[in-house]
Amino acid sequence: MPDPFRTVGIDIGGTNIKIAALWNDGRVLASHQIPTLAADGPRQAVGRIVAAVGEVMRAEGLESTEMRALGLDSAGIVDGERNLVLDAPNLRSWERYPLAEEVGSALGLPAFLENDVNAMAYAEWRCGAGRGTRHLLCLTLGTGVGGGLILDGKLYRGARGAAGEVGHTTLEAHGPRCNCGSRGCLERYVGASYIVERALAALAGDPRPSSLRSVPPAELSPFVLSRAAAEGDGLATLVLEETGFWLGVGLASLVNLLNPERIVVGGGVAQAGEVLLGAARRTLGERAMDVPGRMAEIVPAALGNDASLVGAALLAHERVRES
Amino acid sequence: MPDPFRTVGIDIGGTNIKIAALWNDGRVLASHQIPTLAADGPRQAVGRIVAAVGEVMRAEGLESTEMRALGLDSAGIVDGERNLVLDAPNLRSWERYPLAEEVGSALGLPAFLENDVNAMAYAEWRCGAGRGTRHLLCLTLGTGVGGGLILDGKLYRGARGAAGEVGHTTLEAHGPRCNCGSRGCLERYVGASYIVERALAALAGDPRPSSLRSVPPAELSPFVLSRAAAEGDGLATLVLEETGFWLGVGLASLVNLLNPERIVVGGGVAQAGEVLLGAARRTLGERAMDVPGRMAEIVPAALGNDASLVGAALLAHERVRES
Repeated sequence: MPDPFRTVGIDIGGTNIKIAALWNDGRVLASHQIPTLAADGPRQAVGRIVAAVGEVMRAEGLESTEMRALGLDSAGIVDGERNLVLDAPNLRSWERYPLAEEVGSALGLPAFLENDVNAMAYAEWRCGAGRGTRHLLCLTLGTGVGGGLILDGKLYRGARGAAGEVGHTTLEAHGPRCNCGSRGCLERYVGASYIVERALAALAGDPRPSSLRSVPPAELSPFVLSRAAAEGDGLATLVLEETGFWLGVGLASLVNLLNPERIVVGGGVAQAGEVLLGAARRTLGERAMDVPGRMAEIVPAALGNDASLVGAALLAHERVRES
Repeated sequence: MPDPFRTVGIDIGGTNIKIAALWNDGRVLASHQIPTLAADGPRQAVGRIVAAVGEVMRAEGLESTEMRALGLDSAGIVDGERNLVLDAPNLRSWERYPLAEEVGSALGLPAFLENDVNAMAYAEWRCGAGRGTRHLLCLTLGTGVGGGLILDGKLYRGARGAAGEVGHTTLEAHGPRCNCGSRGCLERYVGASYIVERALAALAGDPRPSSLRSVPPAELSPFVLSRAAAEGDGLATLVLEETGFWLGVGLASLVNLLNPERIVVGGGVAQAGEVLLGAARRTLGERAMDVPGRMAEIVPAALGNDASLVGAALLAHERVRES
């Protein structure tokens, strides 16, 4: 018999906070969004979050006794035992503030905090593109490149909750400097701004005609490139295939190391779709070892922008059931 | 109360087969070695292995009723469910032969097969340099570079038992071709023959005096280099520090990805000791992210050549207890 209780999921972003009530299988009943107002600090947010949860519940006619757990997620390094963000580049003044505990006690619900990419990976695994696997890698390609690992049927967090930094695995030891301080990291080749950088270099160095030449440089984005590629633009295709090559180089190392069944790729850059993923698959096939390489499928993410919030709610429910 | 039963460990190598009787805590009671005679195939080996186990037991006055389980290990990709080697570059004609089952039924013991580097990692974790951790990487540096992963307090094998191929993670996407078919793999920089290659290039290109110049090229080895470095030879030190740099580059990716508490480094090349490991630590410190980088210690392996055999025996005992 399915568990009749519901959960609340809250995604803490640098710009917006998303709030939803969910079934325990991850389906969203109702959701709402409020501004983060990051500069005002975390204390001011508690009351607004609690009010927004109340609104979502009232809109669906839900009673607070029907809610079972509260799952929050945030970017940064999360201490899952104490439910604290230790290191959050986009929310510096919110670090170490007990937001989960405060919101949870105001709502009378057990509250748990998870890293946003871990939460996304968990959601894709439980009810998205990773369903049915025991060993799954999940990547999110955007401004940054994040990763979440499901290993032996469990979310893997590492010793301090810092595991999964796929974006900062090295592709070229003497490559260009990365924001993290190292060189030649995956993020430095497939992060959104570097794709645009590569497109601008291609436009400058490659004389062939391209619809991209009529786009103002400030408006170039992976999405614009993928639209141009879909319309047959050779230069845009080349840039996305090159991006897919670098993604494939990084995935070959991960596949040799972790032997996953599947790799789920999400995030804004992944909207480039088959041009990008197809090139990544070819490179993976050329570079990964035989046994792990043949079995590792690369597939697009299924859950879109709600994935982290759904995963945070599912994980919270899981932790309540375990306790 | 400690379990009074004992286990048998058998390490199947391309040249020799090592056999030991062990306490269940991993201490070796007695051991023996016989030639593999690889070309004669696996069938001929069964009787000789069974006879050698009998000899080891008689020498210690052990009864077969005191033995509880049989653990075998071998290089190559191992199917742990069926206890078969699927892919063994050094023992091609032994692939898919049910050696564990045959030896186990002749001895009347439950028998289990594990990959040799996984077995080594398990042994170092349970009773060697990795004791007390929950998240451990174990590398063995020799002709090849292997790896074993202890994640969340458990040996991690991946979807087909192929996980842990640390030697085939990429350091330079456009680097030199590796035996595995890819380019710029860790093994291509820190494998024994490539260290020698680098030493020969340094001797040819660097005019300074060096004790290595009196060593016949065919006799150059990581061990010879480490001895020369210990005596203050600048050129040998340089070559080993360069090797340590590459090791550190590879480890930085692993640390960012898996956030382990400790990294155990064993195998013949690791005899180069602090010159090599110190350089790896410096590079790890420069390249790994803050939180995972600060906590990951790099330490030498503690168990030496018996590690795989000990790990195979411990894993077999573990599996009997679980069943």
